[in-house]
Amino acid sequence: MKALVYHGPTRKAWETVPDPVIESPTDAIVRIDSATICGTDLHILKGDVPEVRPDTVLGHEAVGTIVETGPAVTTFAKGDRVLVSCITSCGRCPFCKEGHYGLCTGGGGWLFGHTINGLQAEYARVPFADTSVYRVPDALADEQVLFLADILPTAFEVGVLSGRVQPGDSVAIVGVGPIGLATIMTAKLFTPGMIIAIDKAESRLGHAREFGATHMINNGHEDALERVMELTEDSGVDVAIEAVGVPDTFELAAELIRPGGRVANIGVHGHPATLHLESLWMRDVTITTGLVDTRSTLQLLRLIASGHLDAARFATHRFSLDDTIKAYEVFADAAATDVLKVVLQGPTAGSAPSSDRVDRHFAGTRTYRGPHKF
Amino acid sequence: MKALVYHGPTRKAWETVPDPVIESPTDAIVRIDSATICGTDLHILKGDVPEVRPDTVLGHEAVGTIVETGPAVTTFAKGDRVLVSCITSCGRCPFCKEGHYGLCTGGGGWLFGHTINGLQAEYARVPFADTSVYRVPDALADEQVLFLADILPTAFEVGVLSGRVQPGDSVAIVGVGPIGLATIMTAKLFTPGMIIAIDKAESRLGHAREFGATHMINNGHEDALERVMELTEDSGVDVAIEAVGVPDTFELAAELIRPGGRVANIGVHGHPATLHLESLWMRDVTITTGLVDTRSTLQLLRLIASGHLDAARFATHRFSLDDTIKAYEVFADAAATDVLKVVLQGPTAGSAPSSDRVDRHFAGTRTYRGPHKF
Amino acid sequence: MKALVYHGPTRKAWETVPDPVIESPTDAIVRIDSATICGTDLHILKGDVPEVRPDTVLGHEAVGTIVETGPAVTTFAKGDRVLVSCITSCGRCPFCKEGHYGLCTGGGGWLFGHTINGLQAEYARVPFADTSVYRVPDALADEQVLFLADILPTAFEVGVLSGRVQPGDSVAIVGVGPIGLATIMTAKLFTPGMIIAIDKAESRLGHAREFGATHMINNGHEDALERVMELTEDSGVDVAIEAVGVPDTFELAAELIRPGGRVANIGVHGHPATLHLESLWMRDVTITTGLVDTRSTLQLLRLIASGHLDAARFATHRFSLDDTIKAYEVFADAAATDVLKVVLQGPTAGSAPSSDRVDRHFAGTRTYRGPHKF
Amino acid sequence: MKALVYHGPTRKAWETVPDPVIESPTDAIVRIDSATICGTDLHILKGDVPEVRPDTVLGHEAVGTIVETGPAVTTFAKGDRVLVSCITSCGRCPFCKEGHYGLCTGGGGWLFGHTINGLQAEYARVPFADTSVYRVPDALADEQVLFLADILPTAFEVGVLSGRVQPGDSVAIVGVGPIGLATIMTAKLFTPGMIIAIDKAESRLGHAREFGATHMINNGHEDALERVMELTEDSGVDVAIEAVGVPDTFELAAELIRPGGRVANIGVHGHPATLHLESLWMRDVTITTGLVDTRSTLQLLRLIASGHLDAARFATHRFSLDDTIKAYEVFADAAATDVLKVVLQGPTAGSAPSSDRVDRHFAGTRTYRGPHKF
Repeated sequence: MKALVYHGPTRKAWETVPDPVIESPTDAIVRIDSATICGTDLHILKGDVPEVRPDTVLGHEAVGTIVETGPAVTTFAKGDRVLVSCITSCGRCPFCKEGHYGLCTGGGGWLFGHTINGLQAEYARVPFADTSVYRVPDALADEQVLFLADILPTAFEVGVLSGRVQPGDSVAIVGVGPIGLATIMTAKLFTPGMIIAIDKAESRLGHAREFGATHMINNGHEDALERVMELTEDSGVDVAIEAVGVPDTFELAAELIRPGGRVANIGVHGHPATLHLESLWMRDVTITTGLVDTRSTLQLLRLIASGHLDAARFATHRFSLDDTIKAYEVFADAAATDVLKVVLQGPTAGSAPSSDRVDRHFAGTRTYRGPHKF
Repeated sequence: MKALVYHGPTRKAWETVPDPVIESPTDAIVRIDSATICGTDLHILKGDVPEVRPDTVLGHEAVGTIVETGPAVTTFAKGDRVLVSCITSCGRCPFCKEGHYGLCTGGGGWLFGHTINGLQAEYARVPFADTSVYRVPDALADEQVLFLADILPTAFEVGVLSGRVQPGDSVAIVGVGPIGLATIMTAKLFTPGMIIAIDKAESRLGHAREFGATHMINNGHEDALERVMELTEDSGVDVAIEAVGVPDTFELAAELIRPGGRVANIGVHGHPATLHLESLWMRDVTITTGLVDTRSTLQLLRLIASGHLDAARFATHRFSLDDTIKAYEVFADAAATDVLKVVLQGPTAGSAPSSDRVDRHFAGTRTYRGPHKF
Repeated sequence: MKALVYHGPTRKAWETVPDPVIESPTDAIVRIDSATICGTDLHILKGDVPEVRPDTVLGHEAVGTIVETGPAVTTFAKGDRVLVSCITSCGRCPFCKEGHYGLCTGGGGWLFGHTINGLQAEYARVPFADTSVYRVPDALADEQVLFLADILPTAFEVGVLSGRVQPGDSVAIVGVGPIGLATIMTAKLFTPGMIIAIDKAESRLGHAREFGATHMINNGHEDALERVMELTEDSGVDVAIEAVGVPDTFELAAELIRPGGRVANIGVHGHPATLHLESLWMRDVTITTGLVDTRSTLQLLRLIASGHLDAARFATHRFSLDDTIKAYEVFADAAATDVLKVVLQGPTAGSAPSSDRVDRHFAGTRTYRGPHKF
Repeated sequence: MKALVYHGPTRKAWETVPDPVIESPTDAIVRIDSATICGTDLHILKGDVPEVRPDTVLGHEAVGTIVETGPAVTTFAKGDRVLVSCITSCGRCPFCKEGHYGLCTGGGGWLFGHTINGLQAEYARVPFADTSVYRVPDALADEQVLFLADILPTAFEVGVLSGRVQPGDSVAIVGVGPIGLATIMTAKLFTPGMIIAIDKAESRLGHAREFGATHMINNGHEDALERVMELTEDSGVDVAIEAVGVPDTFELAAELIRPGGRVANIGVHGHPATLHLESLWMRDVTITTGLVDTRSTLQLLRLIASGHLDAARFATHRFSLDDTIKAYEVFADAAATDVLKVVLQGPTAGSAPSSDRVDRHFAGTRTYRGPHKF
């Protein structure tokens, strides 16, 4: 099959690799119908995530169709259309039992395009399928659910839920790229009174306004702290959410908070930040960090199905899966292209699963070669 | 009356000052029966708390007897024996209505020995008496409730409750001076499985053991991180509580925590700390800070009354109120004296209130001078 | 002044009564600008609430202007425009300190038109003013905030918050009179996926649809249980809210619930209901009851001010305060009049406070005659 | 093998039945080392649980040793010593993902001795082993963990956690048989101020006192409501826990509660109760029901291992597994025998697993018969 392969810092190729096979009885093989690219993929390509080994297929967000299941997979079957998300859950370790799939110690966690081959490919092996993929309702197109694979649960769980956004709250979001926009979208589920978007790029602030931010601050030329204090009658916001991943934005978020408020960090950080305990110690603040668990995926899926979340609006650019290299170029140059998220479409993207095609591709070629003891 | 007066950095005196008078209809005047000294008082005397103005009476922890009430005080009367605690609550601002008395914006918060005259004195004016003092049951001696004025609710609210200690949890407490010991004592209300005390002073670690710590680490010569990882099978603790107030101890607490754990900061900090977001961002940690609210005072009082908290054990040294200067010396030299908390005893300490004495002192001198100025 | 006076079952009159006076230093006197009538007032007039004594002025919902304050009132002053709500809080008893004002044991709770004279009058005495009334922002008209006096916080606190409505939840509301409609309105703050309104009156179901119910069931001729099971794929709803107050509707609500779901009772009941523990014991349900505390009033006020709650839509009929008797007739005959809530408008309703009028009315007549001990 | 077989109401026998075999790849076969009898088993024998079919092996509480695992079982292996508890979790249905294993819709829930063969036997087939059994630390004897199979997590989750017992609370427990005693034992993890045991049997009240109840009420001849009101200064208790399962005891629990309190029902009910909404509607009560989920098993196991729970004290009578019939007689006659829980001991009870014996018994007889049927 074809896949987007990482060959070390700055090097990637769309090339032929071996078809994935069932390696464990809890695996499934999924045909990728729609995939997308994450900012994290760009970081990997810069060499910032050294645990990704050369020759790894990238990508951790997809909608696809199951073409084969291991013998222990009982809740999904060939032909099922599923969301494959960034986090894999073994379902049996103490963390998974508490819904902390992102911290899985039983072989899951963030695997795709990280420690195993990923989803920017024609097919993928999906470990622990029963506890890690989600059935897609027939009525929903791929693009409506694709962003449940990462940015929506990340924004919702790590930002909105950890920040305990409540009706009427003032919420500041520092950084309104796709994750920041997903934070605006999912914060609105709790009807905050004020959503303040802070960014240095006017184009992103424009998107923030469209997504529902009530106030926009360009901290390239405005004093964000001063503006937030004006907007909140000098109290600071109830919730400040960091969605960038550098020390400056975290420190800004911590400055914006009112006494008793919550700072939720979503950003992926490479460096330490300064925590001003000399002022924060007596301000009753709560600071949270987190990797997404995807424990909210079903909840968000229901909200998409009921029309309460318009997740498809992130899909600003579409490419054939074969054009993944070009899609990377467009996605990496958001300043010029104004892209939010690209959709990489396999030949069957968004349509109902074609069992014909599934059968033909696998006919005689993909019998289970897994653990000989079966 | 006599009081301990701050005269600027390093200077204090036990001297005669004017008797306090009712200034607002919600005030009460309290005769101090028992008081104590806090580590914060030592900081003030070093000049570390510049908002304390010279000529302020120090002290924010006392048990006393009401000798006069303003006309709007309805729930207390002359002769009532009360706990006067470090936090004053106006009862009507939004923060007080949510139980966040420490953040009071209506004239309360930390007032005694800070922005108004304090409690190391023969008498004190207590603002917002109805919402700020607590009736002491007859059956309890002063020493049994005195430490409810600060260290017990501080340790319980800012450490144990903010850290969400649960039955079976592993809890590390960095710094086991009086606040750290109070954290051990109140953490035990939730039956943690392991309480690890960390300090550089063997004498404090000895107290920690007596108070119920299950493991002691002297981080003067042991590697606390390594020891904690051994004790927790390399996971880290569920809850780490900082009870010192310097960057090193905060940073140590943040290192000890397991993924998904909680860091609760109790210490009063004068300098920023480094927050290692490059490792913490994906570890699902919660970090909290806070000034005590004293919203748990009644709950802790009930636990003392039912015999579940032996708060009096903090009282290691006793002095006559007139000997407050000497008590400061003993308290400031804990390394030599092994003091935990001193008790400053007025002539009526611990006994039932003497209305005779109350009446005599105030006869003809302290009638309420009317509502005209309100 | 004039007021609506209860003279025993079925008897009421709009008649002259003595002007209210300050009786306690924490009282305020409020001129009523806008008031309304509650279903509970109709119950009182039927004799169902025997603790209401004849000669009591009825009414517990109003917006008004402060004309006089007792000497201990510090946060409000003459001329302030305020919401006076159904619950009075002493601010100092243990229940008030926990935000449970409805359970106040310090002299508050539900007083107006119940145990003291109420708000369907030209003026009213308001106890514990500092902790019981809310400043109305200038930008908001009386009708925008009037329903914060009872139905909105009741529906929100006792229904939505006690029922823990979460984004995507299915919510059934049994009974969609004004309280049920307020439940729909405030449930939407949490973006439920499905709001099922159940009632026997088509007109009320029509209102429910306008307020945002997604499904309407007329249980006069439909099997509500069967319909709900169809809508929820045989699981039952996440949250069922009872908003009537009779055994049948409570028992229906308890039948509609999914395993693990929540039943929140808002209705005022006069008779016991049957609790089917033989099926509920193993279904992990939570059942809550409650009188409103009004602790959410400020939060809801912010949501009105930010445009997120259109509370004024309850105001379907308006009357001069002098026409209160006629307003009762219209309100009592909702089946014919399709009324939701009436607004009783004093001469200054909805306008900015007129200090002229305030001064004139009280000139020389209402000097503080309160507790002689001041 | 031998097992205790139910043959319809009042009929049971200890007899030879076929050895259990792996039926699904997620199954394990466990040799029973120690088992016990539950009050529910007595109900089944009376015919009260009609879904239990004749010829079913009874029992749902055991400690044993794994002798064989299905091919999809990855976290346990032959020779592992495990706790097998009353609840089985598929690990993949929405309820299991939220920790509600008792509500499992994926093939789990209460299976043993209910819908499949149970654990009062020499061997048992354990479905979904990876997500349903718990490794027993070597240092713990069978009797120390055996009661984690049902009564301890039931009392803790359905009583103590659902009732939200907090330090200093007053807790009333209606019915102090084994479940009520387990409620006392696990309530103490949160240091309540007062634990009131209510029962009609003096012997059970005696046990309650030994387990830590602070007050005993014999409601065979005392007025429990009156006594509780005396003890709580007329407020009622913070938490009332029903641990019997008849309408009277539930109704008593609901009467004992203070405004704002919680009623937690643990009892298994066969009949509806009367809910006095006419008084409860305004008292802000929370009533919960529930089947145990066993989500707290690991937490309780840690507390046993750390010496904080002395679970073995329930073991008052011991029998050889072959004497199960006799053990039933003793257990059914608690009034005469004063039994709390019996222990049914297999030949290897409490000792380290003997791989010899494991191998011999299964040699050549129990090879896994392939994946062809999955």
